[in-house]
Amino acid sequence: MYKVKVYITLRESVLDPQGTAVKSSLHSMSYETVSDVRIGKYMELTIEQNNQDIDALVKEMCERLLANTVIEDYRYEVEEVVAL
Amino acid sequence: MYKVKVYITLRESVLDPQGTAVKSSLHSMSYETVSDVRIGKYMELTIEQNNQDIDALVKEMCERLLANTVIEDYRYEVEEVVAL
Repeated sequence: MYKVKVYITLRESVLDPQGTAVKSSLHSMSYETVSDVRIGKYMELTIEQNNQDIDALVKEMCERLLANTVIEDYRYEVEEVVAL
Repeated sequence: MYKVKVYITLRESVLDPQGTAVKSSLHSMSYETVSDVRIGKYMELTIEQNNQDIDALVKEMCERLLANTVIEDYRYEVEEVVAL
């Protein structure tokens, strides 16, 4: 079994209105030292053992569904979990 | 300057309709080996140097604004960035 952590973030060149909104909320709560906020998605996938290459599988799922590669970047970490 | 990565996930006991929807989409795209999908938020904060304790500061921002601690858990990683 695999535990895969996927991090999806907007590309640097893309405006992040959600991040800007959170930053101004933090400033209004007196956290002025926060100079930038970028918000993205974090996914935890559980994938059963199979004979496919796990990296190729995750990459394909990210490219086809999980990330919008026009405006988003993705990275992932694969952890093999040994069933007890 | 600090780069802080914040991971906000729904508590295990809380239903994740978004995760369930993504899982069924993946299954319909023939990725049947995916047995679970949990979706959360990933935030990257840039915080300027200040005399406050960075851990206490981030914890407070999470508790007060970034996470809804009734249904969400949060964890974060702090990285100090030395300005060149």
